[in-house]
Amino acid sequence: MQLGMVGLGRMGANIVRRLMRDGHECVVFDVNPDAVDTLAGEGAVGATSLADMVAKLEAPRAIWLMIPAGLTGTVVDEVSAVLDPGDILIDGGNSNYRDDVRRAAKLKDTGIHYVDIGTSGGVFGLERGYCLMVGGPDEAFARIEPILKTIAPGGGDVPRTPGRSGDPAPEELGYLHCGPSGAGHFVKMVHNGIEYGVMAALAEGFNILEHADAGITQAEHSAEIAPLEEPEFYQFTIDTPKVAELWRRGSVISSWLLDLTAAALHGNPTLEGLAGRVSDSGEGRWTVKAAVDTGVPAPVLAASLFERFASRDEDQFANQILSAMRLQFGGHQELPAGDVLEAGGEKAESSSRGQSETAGE
Amino acid sequence: MQLGMVGLGRMGANIVRRLMRDGHECVVFDVNPDAVDTLAGEGAVGATSLADMVAKLEAPRAIWLMIPAGLTGTVVDEVSAVLDPGDILIDGGNSNYRDDVRRAAKLKDTGIHYVDIGTSGGVFGLERGYCLMVGGPDEAFARIEPILKTIAPGGGDVPRTPGRSGDPAPEELGYLHCGPSGAGHFVKMVHNGIEYGVMAALAEGFNILEHADAGITQAEHSAEIAPLEEPEFYQFTIDTPKVAELWRRGSVISSWLLDLTAAALHGNPTLEGLAGRVSDSGEGRWTVKAAVDTGVPAPVLAASLFERFASRDEDQFANQILSAMRLQFGGHQELPAGDVLEAGGEKAESSSRGQSETAGE
Amino acid sequence: MQLGMVGLGRMGANIVRRLMRDGHECVVFDVNPDAVDTLAGEGAVGATSLADMVAKLEAPRAIWLMIPAGLTGTVVDEVSAVLDPGDILIDGGNSNYRDDVRRAAKLKDTGIHYVDIGTSGGVFGLERGYCLMVGGPDEAFARIEPILKTIAPGGGDVPRTPGRSGDPAPEELGYLHCGPSGAGHFVKMVHNGIEYGVMAALAEGFNILEHADAGITQAEHSAEIAPLEEPEFYQFTIDTPKVAELWRRGSVISSWLLDLTAAALHGNPTLEGLAGRVSDSGEGRWTVKAAVDTGVPAPVLAASLFERFASRDEDQFANQILSAMRLQFGGHQELPAGDVLEAGGEKAESSSRGQSETAGE
Amino acid sequence: MQLGMVGLGRMGANIVRRLMRDGHECVVFDVNPDAVDTLAGEGAVGATSLADMVAKLEAPRAIWLMIPAGLTGTVVDEVSAVLDPGDILIDGGNSNYRDDVRRAAKLKDTGIHYVDIGTSGGVFGLERGYCLMVGGPDEAFARIEPILKTIAPGGGDVPRTPGRSGDPAPEELGYLHCGPSGAGHFVKMVHNGIEYGVMAALAEGFNILEHADAGITQAEHSAEIAPLEEPEFYQFTIDTPKVAELWRRGSVISSWLLDLTAAALHGNPTLEGLAGRVSDSGEGRWTVKAAVDTGVPAPVLAASLFERFASRDEDQFANQILSAMRLQFGGHQELPAGDVLEAGGEKAESSSRGQSETAGE
Repeated sequence: MQLGMVGLGRMGANIVRRLMRDGHECVVFDVNPDAVDTLAGEGAVGATSLADMVAKLEAPRAIWLMIPAGLTGTVVDEVSAVLDPGDILIDGGNSNYRDDVRRAAKLKDTGIHYVDIGTSGGVFGLERGYCLMVGGPDEAFARIEPILKTIAPGGGDVPRTPGRSGDPAPEELGYLHCGPSGAGHFVKMVHNGIEYGVMAALAEGFNILEHADAGITQAEHSAEIAPLEEPEFYQFTIDTPKVAELWRRGSVISSWLLDLTAAALHGNPTLEGLAGRVSDSGEGRWTVKAAVDTGVPAPVLAASLFERFASRDEDQFANQILSAMRLQFGGHQELPAGDVLEAGGEKAESSSRGQSETAGE
Repeated sequence: MQLGMVGLGRMGANIVRRLMRDGHECVVFDVNPDAVDTLAGEGAVGATSLADMVAKLEAPRAIWLMIPAGLTGTVVDEVSAVLDPGDILIDGGNSNYRDDVRRAAKLKDTGIHYVDIGTSGGVFGLERGYCLMVGGPDEAFARIEPILKTIAPGGGDVPRTPGRSGDPAPEELGYLHCGPSGAGHFVKMVHNGIEYGVMAALAEGFNILEHADAGITQAEHSAEIAPLEEPEFYQFTIDTPKVAELWRRGSVISSWLLDLTAAALHGNPTLEGLAGRVSDSGEGRWTVKAAVDTGVPAPVLAASLFERFASRDEDQFANQILSAMRLQFGGHQELPAGDVLEAGGEKAESSSRGQSETAGE
Repeated sequence: MQLGMVGLGRMGANIVRRLMRDGHECVVFDVNPDAVDTLAGEGAVGATSLADMVAKLEAPRAIWLMIPAGLTGTVVDEVSAVLDPGDILIDGGNSNYRDDVRRAAKLKDTGIHYVDIGTSGGVFGLERGYCLMVGGPDEAFARIEPILKTIAPGGGDVPRTPGRSGDPAPEELGYLHCGPSGAGHFVKMVHNGIEYGVMAALAEGFNILEHADAGITQAEHSAEIAPLEEPEFYQFTIDTPKVAELWRRGSVISSWLLDLTAAALHGNPTLEGLAGRVSDSGEGRWTVKAAVDTGVPAPVLAASLFERFASRDEDQFANQILSAMRLQFGGHQELPAGDVLEAGGEKAESSSRGQSETAGE
Repeated sequence: MQLGMVGLGRMGANIVRRLMRDGHECVVFDVNPDAVDTLAGEGAVGATSLADMVAKLEAPRAIWLMIPAGLTGTVVDEVSAVLDPGDILIDGGNSNYRDDVRRAAKLKDTGIHYVDIGTSGGVFGLERGYCLMVGGPDEAFARIEPILKTIAPGGGDVPRTPGRSGDPAPEELGYLHCGPSGAGHFVKMVHNGIEYGVMAALAEGFNILEHADAGITQAEHSAEIAPLEEPEFYQFTIDTPKVAELWRRGSVISSWLLDLTAAALHGNPTLEGLAGRVSDSGEGRWTVKAAVDTGVPAPVLAASLFERFASRDEDQFANQILSAMRLQFGGHQELPAGDVLEAGGEKAESSSRGQSETAGE
């Protein structure tokens, strides 16, 4: 079938390529004419404006927006102004599902169908296909199902779930009508919330492996930090790239994120050049807020989000407050210089401070 | 090569089967003669006692224990008493790696090689193979490598990690020499710690999906519980079995644990019959303690462990303390019965209590 | 000075009493005429309607609403409709500060000053005074300062902070102009967020004390639950009511919430009759959402909120998912019945299950 | 009564001073002769060695060790070698309660009574008194009760808990016999675990207050970080030193730790000079491990401990792993430089990256 694509960044362009490979016809537009030209060179019909795109599509049309979430509101307004009743407007970006609910309500009287699609797949989507979570009216979903089928991964080599038989259901092909407007991005939001948690579980675990040599490396410790107890049990120098590779095979935690971790560690075993300041896009935040709203405990998902904040030093003031309190009740500086002598057969300047501090807390 | 297997529960028996399929010779023993007979019927050499097993193996021997962790200490003592210098004693169970360190030290002067192997694979290991994390001396590892190769999954259909070439490394075949005694179970411990975190991330996420209809179902709320704000954004009835299936294809969180979740939800969409009292074996606990010992932040792994404790009501006294404090400062019962009238054009008994409680906190 | 009070629940009535004791004149209204009569009998001027109250106050007026948050929006509209420019409308309830921002904006052109006050003090406020966090225009704050001074605790017997001298600042007397509209309830919101965290820290700690006898009581354990390691270190039967009392004196964690805990435990050492289903009002939720919005890590505050959700079994579906996964990969029921025999010199039915499950994970 | 004090750091010296003020006789020793001379100048009997101290005390003796935990084992051995049956040996430092259990067992046959005392009070103990948590045999507790009474704060001006009457119980005077050997340090350990949680709750809350101006300061944001939604609700510049002072009066969270926070912020409102690298002594770690051992959920206490680890950058490798994964699946650098143009009426280089990354996850 025919699809108009607005926004030819990596995701938008690759979806167009995947569609054209499967025989669909794509009319494409981007504010950057070069991006349009490139895809036109690959077989797409280029458009010079939104109006031009609409003119080049036969009614009832389907137009997919693949643009930054911050711009979606404006573009939805612009596109819907030139569409006709019965046309379908798809937001495939990473919008907050709340915006979908609002936009669908706003478009209700125009007769334009609004469809929200959460897509997952990253840079590998062109080959692997994209997992599609769809929200919107039944009628619109039915009409765009042919293109969803193409964009989605299909059954591929994923083993069939025991108990399923017959023709594969849409979810077995990698796309699903999740519910009314907003449901697609809601499911995508939770997907990313889970992703944060899974990533954090892996990252924490590898950090523990990396510190399995604490009994060797922590021979010297500060007076203010609890010494390692039983160093004899932390004498391992674990080869984390090899372990990541190992766990890909037969282990309970084998997963695509582990595959990526193995690839990253194989290419850069010391992770040199990575500062460890971890960004977060909106979905993790929205997921935690949805959990709070609905009274669902989500300590793991929340902790994984807060770890990212802390990686960017957003915990700084809190930590200073903690140091300030310790200075008050213990009378200690952050960087202690020992000045008290204690019994015990030796001059034990620095550890004496640790003692008085903790005994006194 | 030859291997003696002690303990013919599901794991031990299946490992023996996998070995025999590949041409290895197995001498087997279990306190349950029926278990021995079964495997003898499939081609193994049955033994009637540990001594009998030792007699039936050619030196230098390799004996694998696949028994409950609580019994391992005793059996290690029993077996090592009848072994000779140069023999290899393998603990393939789920021992605490600290016990490996202790046992290896104890056996050091006997000339018996002690090897610890963490195995992952669950009930699917017979077909999929088991992921093997090995600790112990180089020499012993080299000698048992042929059986490790057989038990492990091999390369299978897992795509090769970009950048790897040439003959596959052991970790690409599903087994790895992680370090000296204890290193195998240490890596397995962290594996399970991660597993807890991944499972919790999935479980929390599905719980949020399940509550996406809060705007429909929470129409009535208690005076003591914060009401749902903006119920218009929680109007989705999500089909969680379908979503689990969907995410298996092309999504960032595709993983074996997700496969299992999809299978579980397909077979039992309402999870009927499951009380939600979640057990924990030792590894999650050991992982958190190792993180604490080595000063590694592990909030996600710890939270996932504590969620399991709470699922078994181990939070009960803490929760009672919280209710008791609220009773003190707010003067409220857990189950309030309104008795105060407030302004606002209507009798607002119950919500008035909520007001005074929180305003007063 | 003169104040109109709308809402004569416990908080509103006690604030009126505290004001009258100090010579202020109060006009009072409630939908419940009995509540009005009671306070009229103690010296207040009773009003029969909002309009009657406004008529009985001299302009420029100050009216304080002490009503359930759910009703505040309506009553603000009703009262502001009968007020004159220059009058002050105070919301002293537990509103979301976002509502204050919205209401102040809405009233901006009317000339009515909107003031939001977060109050803390609980049932002890009548005697102790209420801690007052005020948001709104400077002019309005200045005009109501006399009544704030009366309602607040004053300096009392709280030792002066080192370094402070001269006349006490407002914050030393228990009230503070925190900023423009919404700032009062914002600070109150964070106050309650902290309160959740402090309460949880105490509750978790007492729960650990309560389980210090695990080495005595956990002699028998399930095959599915990790056994207590080193039971010799958990042989204490701690008298928690006495410990709570003890810590009130000289300890670093002495606090009012600890005082309340001591009182609760002294009166009801086993906390009998408390189900441990812990309510939460909105502030804890709003605090976590504010942390998420502003990118501030708040794992402790979030965990304390989620513990409350879990106390009300909102973790149920997540826990069922966990059990369902374990059933899948381990092949185990939640309530295992042993059926496999293992080596080790004894029939070890139940522990064999634990072994195979964890070794196989 | 008579007491020997070994270790004249700040804590030990101040306890001696408090005892002498109340008429007790103290024999004192420290490896630093100056420390001995100072206290001798204030009325104590100086000793030149442990043997000299023992000689100067009448049997049955009581000797209090106030030395760094790392030295306690050695000194306990040295002192017990020169003591007689019936003598009491007190460890008042911050030992792990497990060491008490071991030491008491070791001394059992010598007839020397071993007593462990957890002390809390910090630098203010000389004036305020020390909260004393005591473990050990009944007989020994009874004999040293006179000195405990002196060292403890006494009833002071702490209001009596409702329902208590008659002569004050020991816990109302600030000391308590918590149980057999180890119970004192066990209770102290949990005390400090709670302290970590309370401190973290306060620190997180103040951090949120500090970021209440995010709507003003976060006008510009990175493409990789979720933008602040609804900046109109984060327009407050909160004076945190004043808020800390305010909450000391009448609020639910008034506490000694809040008093200290107020003092710290008043003296140093921007917390200049504090790096925010927060130390932790052993007790917080031991508390979390005890919770894990006994199956008690302690997410708040654990999170507060992990925050301290993270403040010292112990999360670094985990964060690098997270960045490495994001680089893999999103193809993004940590510090993105926009290079893709998107539709929407404007050049949107940087946000296009944010879009493709999250839409693709």
